Order: sequence, then structure tokens, then C-alpha cells
Amino acid sequence: AATRSGGRPWASAARAVASMAFPPRALRPRWPRLWGRRGLRAAPPDPPEPLPTSQRYRVRRLPFAPLARGDLEFLERALPGRASTDPAELEPRNVDWLRSVRGCSQLVLKPQTTAEVSQVLRYCYEKNLAVTPQGGNTGLVGGSVPVFDEIILSTALMNRIISFDEVSGILVCQAGCVLEKLNEYVEEQGFIMPLDLGAKGSCHIGGNVATNAGGLRLLRYGSLRGTVLGLEVVLADGSILDCLTSLRKDNTGYDLKQLFIGSEGTLGVITAVSILCPQKPKAVNLAFLGCQSYPKVLETFSTCRAMLGEILSAFEFMDEKCMELVEKHLKLSSPVPGSPFYILIETSGSNSAHDEEKLNGFLERAMTSGLVTDGTVATDAKKIKALWSLRERITEALTRDGYVYKYDISLPVGKLYDLVTDTRARLGRSAKNVVGYGHLGDGNLHLNITAESYSHSLLDAIEPFVYEWTARCNGSISAEHGLGFKKKQFIGYSKPREAVQLMRHFKALLDPKGILNPYKMLPSAP
Amino acid sequence: AATRSGGRPWASAARAVASMAFPPRALRPRWPRLWGRRGLRAAPPDPPEPLPTSQRYRVRRLPFAPLARGDLEFLERALPGRASTDPAELEPRNVDWLRSVRGCSQLVLKPQTTAEVSQVLRYCYEKNLAVTPQGGNTGLVGGSVPVFDEIILSTALMNRIISFDEVSGILVCQAGCVLEKLNEYVEEQGFIMPLDLGAKGSCHIGGNVATNAGGLRLLRYGSLRGTVLGLEVVLADGSILDCLTSLRKDNTGYDLKQLFIGSEGTLGVITAVSILCPQKPKAVNLAFLGCQSYPKVLETFSTCRAMLGEILSAFEFMDEKCMELVEKHLKLSSPVPGSPFYILIETSGSNSAHDEEKLNGFLERAMTSGLVTDGTVATDAKKIKALWSLRERITEALTRDGYVYKYDISLPVGKLYDLVTDTRARLGRSAKNVVGYGHLGDGNLHLNITAESYSHSLLDAIEPFVYEWTARCNGSISAEHGLGFKKKQFIGYSKPREAVQLMRHFKALLDPKGILNPYKMLPSAP
Repeated sequence: AATRSGGRPWASAARAVASMAFPPRALRPRWPRLWGRRGLRAAPPDPPEPLPTSQRYRVRRLPFAPLARGDLEFLERALPGRASTDPAELEPRNVDWLRSVRGCSQLVLKPQTTAEVSQVLRYCYEKNLAVTPQGGNTGLVGGSVPVFDEIILSTALMNRIISFDEVSGILVCQAGCVLEKLNEYVEEQGFIMPLDLGAKGSCHIGGNVATNAGGLRLLRYGSLRGTVLGLEVVLADGSILDCLTSLRKDNTGYDLKQLFIGSEGTLGVITAVSILCPQKPKAVNLAFLGCQSYPKVLETFSTCRAMLGEILSAFEFMDEKCMELVEKHLKLSSPVPGSPFYILIETSGSNSAHDEEKLNGFLERAMTSGLVTDGTVATDAKKIKALWSLRERITEALTRDGYVYKYDISLPVGKLYDLVTDTRARLGRSAKNVVGYGHLGDGNLHLNITAESYSHSLLDAIEPFVYEWTARCNGSISAEHGLGFKKKQFIGYSKPREAVQLMRHFKALLDPKGILNPYKMLPSAP
Repeated sequence: AATRSGGRPWASAARAVASMAFPPRALRPRWPRLWGRRGLRAAPPDPPEPLPTSQRYRVRRLPFAPLARGDLEFLERALPGRASTDPAELEPRNVDWLRSVRGCSQLVLKPQTTAEVSQVLRYCYEKNLAVTPQGGNTGLVGGSVPVFDEIILSTALMNRIISFDEVSGILVCQAGCVLEKLNEYVEEQGFIMPLDLGAKGSCHIGGNVATNAGGLRLLRYGSLRGTVLGLEVVLADGSILDCLTSLRKDNTGYDLKQLFIGSEGTLGVITAVSILCPQKPKAVNLAFLGCQSYPKVLETFSTCRAMLGEILSAFEFMDEKCMELVEKHLKLSSPVPGSPFYILIETSGSNSAHDEEKLNGFLERAMTSGLVTDGTVATDAKKIKALWSLRERITEALTRDGYVYKYDISLPVGKLYDLVTDTRARLGRSAKNVVGYGHLGDGNLHLNITAESYSHSLLDAIEPFVYEWTARCNGSISAEHGLGFKKKQFIGYSKPREAVQLMRHFKALLDPKGILNPYKMLPSAP
């Protein structure tokens, strides 16, 4: 059975598992809470059944050992009751959240402790068994599911909070803690997690760190590279690297943990995280504004940064096409008259009177100087939620508009929207809609193109055009989603050859057999 | 001549440079502006002439090639007029700022471009010539000067600002730009550098990044790991690694630049930096408070974080011994009656009325609940400077108190002061004074012990006691100063063996011949 994956036969070992049900019975994964962060959590329409990745993409199985009965016996003894070959358990872990890739793993392991992860990896390393670490499986680039028959190493049962320091706001926890649960926990003590994502109800903090998740609070609290203080990681050979310190400052040697942040499970399995939590803001305000041009959006951003300063916590934008789709497909209505651009500004601070005064001062300036033409402000939770939904449900509106080509691009903020304009001009009528929105404050554009159905010729018109355009501006072809399986071949558009070569060296150093999350992040060998 | 350094003779090459003046004529280095950041820049009393490092420490020269006449000719051709063997130029670059270590380099190179750095390193790598990269030479652990006859590669002439984006606040510049100059430059455009150090008048941004400098703004703006967006680095073999992007988000592959941040010049030479600058605050306030116990200092910190929230920009503390020394040696007077502890709180915000109101609210709470017993507040620049000097001139007061044993420790904030109490109890009358102060908001303690003169028995009583104490609390034996030459043997107190081993692997991967800043950061081979 295992030979179907496209690798060499390894016949005897394959026969050993031939009696197992394979491929497993198809089951829908439970939908993670990815749709709207403020309570809007309706699932999108059922997508079609994805093809196995090995049939859809040109990819060859590497000569890892297939899972043998002896392996299964060892691993079941190591993790009693927590090594599952049940197809019902495997199916949602073999398919990604977008239902765009599908592996055919026959085994999921659910360790509870770092020692167990170590034991499992030591064994797999020795036996040359490939392993895919998996958190909440909410990734968007196919990085969190197997490509072939890799063993799935799930952090689902590693969900213990180890410590929380109420003075410093430093949280230490196992990698499998769900982000939303952690946020609820620290909120009770007057803090918040330094990151917030749509997928927070499902995603694991270990996965967040492994993918260097960005999200909605980055503008204010910075990236995980600053807020993650320590990591515990199990390396490919099972050795444990304990860098789980809780210090804001530590200049003793190279900062090894940084290499694992954003390495997408290819260099080690993150088992525990130490992270600095900011104070919970006492006041939140939201302004939704209409703006007549992109240069005015930029000027509004500058003015806003200057006048709101330390209380600015989000600066999002969307173009009028986004609003059209949200109105058409979701029956939401814009709170301000039709404008070429809309801006969403959030403030978070410690004094509501001060924050409102600052926001009002800024709005008056923006209005009188013609930067924005109209707008509305919300201070109560219900209206804030309604306004956020206009921005957050764009993804949902897009899926209802047809087949969606999705791009997650970082660009110098001045040039950000030119990519949308140029793409729109290039595609003309061959696309249904070309829309741009995103985290303007972070220079992060979500470029989305819809069409009635998937078309290879349209894809050819978009790629590599979008990647080349991005590369010319020294942008990033993946701002926050990572490379995973689906984007790894495009790394060269954002990183020079020397850098990719050095990455390969790091991979070879830390995982000489390449058993950890193979086929991911780094492009196939040239 | 070169054989004096302790290595193997390499006789012929040594003879080739024997005609050069050696050792060079002793000259005092110009004092960097390290004494007080707000204009108080008096130099400390002249320290004694330091011994060559190779005579004072047990260290053996590694078998690098000594500088031959042919090397000199090549390098002089490569950098016409900027390859100097002048003893007057060499002396201040061979001795560290504390005058605690002294190398005997015979050559300083001053490239202007990345291509020149590349050319120089390619040559040195091929010829097995050791190189010490040097910025402003303001380091405190002997990391920025040669130990033996390493060639000094100075970034002094790499001081060009490449670009500044007024919308995003992203600055791109060469590595040799002086921090203070950069701050002045971005201030004109409404921004500030995200870090501030006492040494800002001399230190280079490349050196700041190479040592992951902490400093006075870390509490507010986070570490360089979050604010540095891109780096250009020349590797040991001369190859150029261009990761000089200006993107807040970029998840395409491993974040290689992180490995160079804080690597103290041992993995590559940083030639250019891209860094995110925060808005310049419009209002700054300072409060200087007296506090009756360390637990009350902690409670004041919690209250302060909660009430000042986003405008808190510094939370420093000092004990009464510090105040005694400042009063005795510098004739400064405390603005508040004698207290066991003093706290210095700075706010930086965008609205002075709001900030004062917040600060006053906090102070009222702190006073009425007995957290602090007395205090004074400053809003005008002159009084702010005078209050800061009480904290900032402690270092100066200590040098006037006698010989100083200095420790820069990170600890969980709750236990921070226990180390001072325990050290004081342990040393009893064998020490003159044992004082504690530092960046409480960052969990960073400066523990200083003075005595009439240096004594080996006192050192033995302090070390490894302080390091062991720190290790038991999972602290860091070097919070912000790095390891350099003087602390590298103590890395094991803060990092596990596996981590140090992995660091060695990285060093071997990036610099197989070990020519870059040898004898630094990593402990001598076991």
C-alpha cells in the first residue's frame, strides 16, 4: 500500500502494513474557527474532495522507510492508547484546512510530554521514518499535513500551562495549548497574548511559533521574534534542546531559538514556549473611514501614527471591490458612502477618555484636511464587532465569488497597492474580480483574484507575474503564511541563492536524514 | 615579533613583518561618550595601562597565519590609504574601552563598501589570517579588540545612510553609522532609533546589532530581534549574504539574520542594517520615588504597568547604597528622603496632558496605598536630566569607590534583588560595598562589588558564587553585555551543553577556519 505514494517499493515493509485499511475512509475535518475573530464563525460552503497531493503535484517520495508492523508495535508501547491508526482520526489530519492537499499517513502519535516526543523521534530517526509535526492544522500553505505517508506527530495532548508570572506577564506552556485558551487564561490575570489570529480557536501556540504567525496584533506588539523568550525543542535525532528561559534579556551565545521560530517543523519539534504577554488594554475604539485614493490612505496612516502614537493597534485597509463583494455575497452594508478605499483603525489603551480624545482629534484633522471623506466610530463591543466583520469577512465573500487565487505579499507600503492595480490591468476580463486588502500598517497585502472556475491559463497569467513584481520591489512572496508545501518552489523570488543554500546547510546540520516535515519549506534539490 | 603572542613560530612570515614597529607606541584611546546619556560626559579617572591579554589570561594563539609583507601589500592595494599599520591608529583599537584587555594587531583595515569587506575577507580566509571586526569599540567584555595579532576590520568609514522611509519609519544604513548620528537624523523626520545606550556617541549600529545591544528603550520598543528587519552580512569566506529587506513580515524560509544578531562578529561581518524606527514621543515625564522594600518595588512595578500602560518607557531601580555612593563621590543629592530603594519611572507619549494625568493618577495611588513613601516628578528637560543622572552616574560613582567587580545579570524579576542581599551577606566585610541597580522592567540587574583594590581571594568569593546563584534561578550571566573574550568560559551557567554544542556546529558551518573574531563568545574547545 505504501508504495502508492510514489517512492521506491521497500516491498517487505510495505507488505507488513498491507492489512491496515488504506486509504482511510474519507471524513470531513472539523472546521477550525477561522472565519472572523469576533464571533462570526460560520463555515464556508463544503469544498470538493481534495486529490492526494502526490497525484496533484509533481513530487517524488523520498526513500524514507515505510511504517512497518514492528514500528507500530514499538510506538504503541511508547504511547499507550495515543498512537492511532484509526482512519477517522487520520483523515482530518491528512487533509489541510483549505482542503487543497492530502497526505496518506497511516499513523498519528499524540505524546503528552517532551520525553515522549524525544523517545518517538529518536526511534524514527534511527529507523529513517519521516515525521510531520502538527498543531491545530490551520496552516494555509500545506505545511502541516503529510505529503505521503509521514507519521503525524500531533501536539494535541501537550496542552498544559507550566507557569505564569503575574508581575512580568511571562507565560510558559506546552506547545499544544490552543491560542484562544491561552488568551482566556492570561486575560483573567490582566494580560493578553501578544498575537491574535482568525484561527485562534484551533491553532496551537507551538504551531504559531513554528510558523512565525503574524496576525492582528503585530502592528502593536511586534513579531514573535521579540515576544517569544524561550523554546524547548526536540531535534530530529530525539535530543532535547532546552532554551526555555523566561528572560527578556540574555546575551549568552547565539540565540538558537530564533532558528526554530518560523522553521515550519523542519528543524525540530517545538514542545514548550515561553512568551511575554502585554497588559490587557482597558479601552478599545474602532474607526471605519472612506478614503478617495491610495496616496490619501498612506497620508492618513502617517497622520494616524503621529497623532494616535502609542494607542494605535490596527491599521487595516480594503478597496471598494472588497466592499462590493461583502455587500453582494454577505448582505452586509457599508457604514460609509461608496469610496475607492476604506480604512479600519483600532486603538487600544489604558484610559478610555484619553483614547477617545486622541481619536477624535485625529479624525477632525483627517476630515478637515480632506484625507478621509466620511467615516464612523464605534466604542461599544457590538458595533466594533459589526465594523470588524466588514474587513474580516472579505475572505468568506471571496470564496462565494468563485474560485480564488490567493496571495499574501509584503511590500514597501508606498508601492503596496500598485500590485493590485497592475494585476487588474494585466488580467482584464479574464478575471472576475481582483481585490486588495490587508494589514497596511505592517505592509502586508492580501491580493485575491476570483474567476468562475479554476483555469490553468489564468494561473499562468498571474504566476510568476505576481512573484516577479514582488521580487522587483524587494517584497516577500509570503508575508505571514509561510512556504509549507505549496509555496516552497517560489522562495527564490524573495531570498537570494546564497541564503537558500545556507538554509539547506542548516537543515542538513540539524536533520541530516531529513525526516522532519520533508517536502516542506525548502525547494526540492536543484 | 608575532610569535610573542604565544602561537607556533611560523618563523619566516614572522620575520617578514619584523621590521614594523612593534609593540606600537602606547596611546590613550579617545573616551567614548559612555558616561551618562543626557549630557553628562565627564571621563572617569585615568585607569592603569592594561597588560597584553595574552599575558594576563591563559590563552593560546591558534595557528592562524601571521601577517606577511605580501598580505600587507595586497590589502593596501585593495584599500588604498585605508589599510593602516600606524601605531597611533592601532593602539586605541587594540585596547578595549574599559582598558581591561589589549591585543597586538599590526593592521587596521577601513573598508567603505560591502564589496571591499568581501574582497578583504575572501583574501584573509584563503590565507588563514584571523580578523576582528570592530565598530565603535565600546563593548564591555573584550569582544571588540584582538586577543593576539588579528587584523582589525573597522566599520568606521562605512557610515552612509542608504534610505529612510518617512511613512514606515524604516531606516537602511551602513554598519558603521554612529547610533547618536542616526538618532539625530531620524529625529528630524519625527522618529527615534528603537535603542538608546550610554555609548551612543561612539557605538556603531553594526556593533549594536552584532552584540544585540539592550539599553534604555528596550522596555518600550522591544529588542533588536524585533526591530531589525534586515541585514547584509559578509561571511568568513567573503561571500555576501544579502538579507537587507525592509519588510515587517517575511516568512520565506529560515530567518538567517537572527543568527547574526548577537553573534559578536564570530559568524560574519554585518555591513548594512535595516531597522524599524518608532515615532518620536511628543511628551516625556520622569518620576523619582522612594520605596521601603523590594516587594514594594515589585508591587509598584505591577501597578505602574497597569496604570501607565502604553506610555511607560522606563522602570529603573537603585538601592540606598547606590545613592550613598552617588552622594559621597559625586556630591549629588537625593531629591527624596533616605529610602532603602529608589525607583525611576519614565513615560513617553503623544499627548502631554494625557500622560501627566495618567502619571498623577498612578502616583496618587502609589502614595495612598503606601507603595512609595516620597517622590518628585519632572517634566522640564533640565530637571529630567538631573534626575536621570542619579541613576546613570552610579557607574561613575562606583569607579571612584575603588576596584569594581561588575556583573550584568538577568533574573526573574521577583528574585532579582535576592542576589544582592545574598552576595552582601556572603562577602561581609571583605567587600567595601555591594550594590544593586538596573533595568527592573527588563529583569536586568547590575550587581557591583567594590573593594579598596583588586584581590584574588575576593574574586574567588564572588565567582562562581554569583554565576551558580544565577544558574539556579535560570537566569542569564550576561543580560546585555554579551560574552566576548572575558565571559565566554561561563556560558555553561546559562546555556545547556547541547546548546553550546549546536553553537559550535553553527560556527564551524559558517566559518570553518575560525578566522572571524577568534577566542570570543564560544568557550575554548573542551
